[in-house]
Amino acid sequence: MKKERNRKGAKLKVMCLGGLQEIGKNMTVLEYGNDIVVIDCGLGFPDEDMPGVDLVIPDISYLVKNAEKIRGILITHGHEDHIGAVPYILQQINVPIYGTRLSLGIIEGKLSEHPLPSEPELYTVEAGDVISLGVFRAEFIHVNHSIADACAIALTTPAGVVYHSGDFKLDVSPIDGQIMDLTRIGELGKAGVTLLLCESTNAERAGFTPSERTVGSSLERIFAQYEDRRLIIATFSSNVHRVQQIINASARHGRHVAVLGRSMVNVIGAAAELGYMDLPDGVLIDVSEIKKYKPEQTTLITTGSQGEPMSALYRLAFAEHDRVKLSPRDVVVLSSSAIPGNEKLVGKIINALIRSGVRVVNDSVEDVHVSGHACREEIKLLMALLRPKFFMPIHGEYRHLYANKEIAEFMGIPSENIFVPELGRVLELDKKKAAFVGEVPAGKVLVDGSGVGDIGSVVLRDRRHLAEDGLVVVVATLDTESGQLVSGPDIVSRGFVYVKEAEELMARVKAVAEKSLEKLLKNGFTDWQHIKGVLRDDLAKFIFRETKRKPMILPVIMDV
Amino acid sequence: MKKERNRKGAKLKVMCLGGLQEIGKNMTVLEYGNDIVVIDCGLGFPDEDMPGVDLVIPDISYLVKNAEKIRGILITHGHEDHIGAVPYILQQINVPIYGTRLSLGIIEGKLSEHPLPSEPELYTVEAGDVISLGVFRAEFIHVNHSIADACAIALTTPAGVVYHSGDFKLDVSPIDGQIMDLTRIGELGKAGVTLLLCESTNAERAGFTPSERTVGSSLERIFAQYEDRRLIIATFSSNVHRVQQIINASARHGRHVAVLGRSMVNVIGAAAELGYMDLPDGVLIDVSEIKKYKPEQTTLITTGSQGEPMSALYRLAFAEHDRVKLSPRDVVVLSSSAIPGNEKLVGKIINALIRSGVRVVNDSVEDVHVSGHACREEIKLLMALLRPKFFMPIHGEYRHLYANKEIAEFMGIPSENIFVPELGRVLELDKKKAAFVGEVPAGKVLVDGSGVGDIGSVVLRDRRHLAEDGLVVVVATLDTESGQLVSGPDIVSRGFVYVKEAEELMARVKAVAEKSLEKLLKNGFTDWQHIKGVLRDDLAKFIFRETKRKPMILPVIMDV
Repeated sequence: MKKERNRKGAKLKVMCLGGLQEIGKNMTVLEYGNDIVVIDCGLGFPDEDMPGVDLVIPDISYLVKNAEKIRGILITHGHEDHIGAVPYILQQINVPIYGTRLSLGIIEGKLSEHPLPSEPELYTVEAGDVISLGVFRAEFIHVNHSIADACAIALTTPAGVVYHSGDFKLDVSPIDGQIMDLTRIGELGKAGVTLLLCESTNAERAGFTPSERTVGSSLERIFAQYEDRRLIIATFSSNVHRVQQIINASARHGRHVAVLGRSMVNVIGAAAELGYMDLPDGVLIDVSEIKKYKPEQTTLITTGSQGEPMSALYRLAFAEHDRVKLSPRDVVVLSSSAIPGNEKLVGKIINALIRSGVRVVNDSVEDVHVSGHACREEIKLLMALLRPKFFMPIHGEYRHLYANKEIAEFMGIPSENIFVPELGRVLELDKKKAAFVGEVPAGKVLVDGSGVGDIGSVVLRDRRHLAEDGLVVVVATLDTESGQLVSGPDIVSRGFVYVKEAEELMARVKAVAEKSLEKLLKNGFTDWQHIKGVLRDDLAKFIFRETKRKPMILPVIMDV
Repeated sequence: MKKERNRKGAKLKVMCLGGLQEIGKNMTVLEYGNDIVVIDCGLGFPDEDMPGVDLVIPDISYLVKNAEKIRGILITHGHEDHIGAVPYILQQINVPIYGTRLSLGIIEGKLSEHPLPSEPELYTVEAGDVISLGVFRAEFIHVNHSIADACAIALTTPAGVVYHSGDFKLDVSPIDGQIMDLTRIGELGKAGVTLLLCESTNAERAGFTPSERTVGSSLERIFAQYEDRRLIIATFSSNVHRVQQIINASARHGRHVAVLGRSMVNVIGAAAELGYMDLPDGVLIDVSEIKKYKPEQTTLITTGSQGEPMSALYRLAFAEHDRVKLSPRDVVVLSSSAIPGNEKLVGKIINALIRSGVRVVNDSVEDVHVSGHACREEIKLLMALLRPKFFMPIHGEYRHLYANKEIAEFMGIPSENIFVPELGRVLELDKKKAAFVGEVPAGKVLVDGSGVGDIGSVVLRDRRHLAEDGLVVVVATLDTESGQLVSGPDIVSRGFVYVKEAEELMARVKAVAEKSLEKLLKNGFTDWQHIKGVLRDDLAKFIFRETKRKPMILPVIMDV
């Protein structure tokens, strides 16, 4: 009966609660009648205009409101921007989560650090598995990416098949031997696909993304060139195949490998346990053991390839690591490229390393990194195989979404069948027609410390103001009965001027406050808001005239 | 007599007060006996860890102390990082300034905005000119760069010739027809050069920097491809030759050119007046006149190619420009590349432009930009012609300086004759020997508003703290005689939590403060520093436990 109602008037709704106008925070929602399926549940990182914010997660008020409809969250792979919000979302709604072993392994690690109101339901799937979720059937399809066990999802809906690409690349010579399942994708295309949701990260880049294996050849050259030196190699801890290649090269060259950085230690442990990594006997050693070997007999694998302050590589570069000291004979390899926005952080580490005499090899010197995302030709291949009726680019800033739109047009998808989404915008479709029809709430929820969502635009504006010019507090105690000044005004400042060298200025600020108060009280004003307003204006005017700065002025009036 | 003293015991001293471990703030000092010559006087821009700081200038306390020795400041070219600190330095020392016409024209514009204690002495030179400065003779040598009228300086000293490269590239087909004066450089090399100071900006890049003229060919293709659309082209206002090429292409294609952005208007005006630019009759129009023409008959040249907030391009992209509105038929060309650190700002503008439907052409699509700095092969060429005995890389972060050192080694300069400098480190040399011998004060002086140097590490640390987690002010009025609480404690916060939604938390913060005060007063404590310390600790502990945040806690105690 319920299903019947579903079938008649209902249409499929597709909306993104994250992953648009940004890199990160990916979350796509598909709804049909009484059933909702969510694909991915990622976090994002704060922009420079969000000082103090730790993380950004999607606004899921629409999901909370419709919690009883949600049949499950499907995870495409275990990167932070696809799973990082899971602990926060499960605080609010308890829904089953489906993902491959490695993805769920990483999620379990996260959940152990976040107490939940109820036991999470995690279901392990494998590529090829099909699961039923209300009116939906979800098939997990193997793809290549910079983390193992990544999937796309083909969702069979009453409006036909929706293919969600996840994050993917085509690697015809992958480290684990499993190439993206083009055959199954071709079969889906033959049978007919209504909508393709395709990631856009590299849609501006021409050609094909090189195989992960090309990094292996570069590593081989580096190991040969520096056979008489210790190698320190930094990369993303989640890139299990990269780490595997570094371990393999080390084993081949008779080196022992020590691991630095908490997340690297955790991931290698988990991946090895789950069978995603093959650790030759005796290659891995503890950091404490490296002194037993000659430098050229060891490789250190470390976190910090994005220049993260306090990462293991950062501490090495600035000689702050408590267990390892760099020597000028060391060679540091950055097996990564700087994520946009991190260029200066990475540059800072490179400068520090070079200053300490270390040789640095990065992607401008050798091909020590490849992307995990599909470039234009791979996206075209996916489109050619799937031949979808409708197309929606996802996962990217506007420039990436539009570049992906142009690829779709090039591949012959009519412009009117291409829908460039906005956060929360609802695409409604059946097998024949599709249109944007409305909006659901969507946006950024900021996480700061243990607070989720309590930081908004007012707090951020104040933080930016405080950062820019500091603050001046003016405090006075009044007798409300008599309207007399009892104590003060006192002036306290922080982040404004170095007070010890600006005593004269601060004395004059105080004099201005005294004069303002005197005048106000003589005129019999006892409206505190008014007094505060006049104090603020008078001080701001004086301070700007004297210093051309606009600190925050904070008047505090007390009564006795 | 004085000269005699100079000749005997004295040696040449060379030190950099800026331009090292950074891009910008260039300043090199050469001293022999009683004579000092300064080359360039630039400013730098603040790092992200210097919130609110407007500009950074060199610490010139060494020059102030030795003001009577300074014979002049020589300017290599008119970029901010070579001339921007002139108004600030002339506030402290009045010394003659020598530079080419365009450099001085730009300096004059700056000085008109900064009242000086005395009339500045500006002396115009031309490439080829030789001027005497105490024991020194300075010869200005024409080089190519991304601004017209750029020079290197060959300084004849009692220790031989020191060649300062300025910023340079070799352009064999420059827009103004004047290639870098390789002949004179070769002659200097033949006669013998003691020390080469060479810029390092592009020392990590292989090959030669392409000619400015290659941008002309790209512009030609763009003008042909988009002959039916309006073109908006953003570039650096100081790149006179780039602007000239845009104007030429527009004239050839029957377009009129309007100019947006204050600095662009200023530079084109000054450059045309000084004869550095050739404006075909009737091509330039006022922005108010663009409506008289069809869109495809106009080109707009604008500032903002680095994504600067509030630049003309920024306002266009966000539909905030009061005189020009973009249409989806417009084509925006970014004839520039993002300076490291500006990638996100530029990306923000590109996203906004694409979102508004505009076509964006940048250096990933066409060769619409070339660098103004020498790549490795050009640096080698300079070394090959000059054959200096000693070498010191300047102008760059460590990575660039070290890359330049490696080029010098490749070119056969013995490692022991190469000196990688640090800020303020003094290289002492005669014709045969050179060594680092000591240090002079050097560093960053921060400019914020009208304050120069009054922002130091304490103020910056407070600003960063305030930005990170905001602040909580706790105010109480005490009766010092009786040790009684008269009023308060009151709690005020900014940038910490959104108070309207955190009333309960703030009430509990207040309760903690009340309890602390009560206990302190009951125990008879009247040492205010002690009271403040306890309040700060108690509140910090409570707040961190509740929120995992560490706002600045500012206790203010008043007495009656």
